[in-house]
Amino acid sequence: METRDALLEAGAALLREQPVGAVLTQVKAQPVAQRAGRTIGAFYHHWSSQEAYHRDLLAYVLDPQRLLSTAAAADTVLADLPRGLPLEEVVRRAARRNFEIVRANPYVPLILALWGKQAQDERVRELLRAHYRSVTDRLVPVYRTLFDAYGLTMRPPYTVEMFAATLTALVEGLTVRAAVEPEVVPLDLPHAGDLSAAPGAGAAGAAPWDLFSATVVGILRAMTMPADPA
Amino acid sequence: METRDALLEAGAALLREQPVGAVLTQVKAQPVAQRAGRTIGAFYHHWSSQEAYHRDLLAYVLDPQRLLSTAAAADTVLADLPRGLPLEEVVRRAARRNFEIVRANPYVPLILALWGKQAQDERVRELLRAHYRSVTDRLVPVYRTLFDAYGLTMRPPYTVEMFAATLTALVEGLTVRAAVEPEVVPLDLPHAGDLSAAPGAGAAGAAPWDLFSATVVGILRAMTMPADPA
Repeated sequence: METRDALLEAGAALLREQPVGAVLTQVKAQPVAQRAGRTIGAFYHHWSSQEAYHRDLLAYVLDPQRLLSTAAAADTVLADLPRGLPLEEVVRRAARRNFEIVRANPYVPLILALWGKQAQDERVRELLRAHYRSVTDRLVPVYRTLFDAYGLTMRPPYTVEMFAATLTALVEGLTVRAAVEPEVVPLDLPHAGDLSAAPGAGAAGAAPWDLFSATVVGILRAMTMPADPA
Repeated sequence: METRDALLEAGAALLREQPVGAVLTQVKAQPVAQRAGRTIGAFYHHWSSQEAYHRDLLAYVLDPQRLLSTAAAADTVLADLPRGLPLEEVVRRAARRNFEIVRANPYVPLILALWGKQAQDERVRELLRAHYRSVTDRLVPVYRTLFDAYGLTMRPPYTVEMFAATLTALVEGLTVRAAVEPEVVPLDLPHAGDLSAAPGAGAAGAAPWDLFSATVVGILRAMTMPADPA
């Protein structure tokens, strides 16, 4: 191999083995104390070392209470349920709000960077597990309530947990894509394509569909079925 | 705010502003030269500084030829097309292979970590754009060929590009989730739920469905329709 290529491939090999280096360790005691308006003495009163601080900071940034997008989606569904809207409109409103908040969430880049450490770092993996677990735990009862209200049940072999995991994966993946190539993740579709099967539903509102919300409707139709197929 | 909380919040604020620090800069000249079996002199013959090397390394790891999963999915579809398999089986085989290769791809953690820098780094954003663009460019003609072969066309307002972007987002999101919580991303579903509408299709093979492949079928059904609705 030519020397230049050999040196690039060597760097790439080092990155494949350890794809993400310093994520939290870039955060140093002095700027943290300054930002907080505290002394460096106060910092070391609470933590014996920067490493000890980084351990607590990891748990802090992955705390489920940082999951504003999940709470917003859940609240939107629950607030809309008594309004008698068509199912597609309830889904559109909740999914769109969820997508907007995930895209604006400054912790998403951090979580995805930390994910690159999970293979080498058991503690990161456990905290990410707990993080995603809490997303599912929050959303599953909301989805159940929604399906019950609209006479739907899961279509075997799907479960509500799988539905929740699929939607979370899709919103994260589309958030990644929309940041670098917004033109392939439209926010202003005239309607969700599969509504053609439900005449009149498309007229529920002239509100635009984004690609995430529209896809959620398709996934919901695929994974659920009428609870009482009369 | 209590001092301990103030110091944690200050660290979190620093991370929100700059979520990902050193990704490539962890790769130093000496270990690279050693790994490549070259001298440090050879390294500095090709690059005047580590920073210059990091710029080329970034382009190297984001080179579209690193996209083995895309090529594998495309090749699987094209090889299966003449075999006369049911559409769902063609989709299952290609999607499963794609999911397997993405999960094993050591560049995925690196790409997601680099994504955390795109808001602050124009060059990272441009390289990621080119990376995703090449994924789409490779897949769109394959999807068109597949849809043509099975008498399908896109259901307005969807485009083949949106279908490609949705599948890429979903496979990345499920790869993230499967690594930390594999039990919610099953690989052994007995069948894709929405096949109940196509009697007999489920009998095409006893091969297991993974959640990604099954969801792809649902998205395909939602985003396409018969080209000639006779």
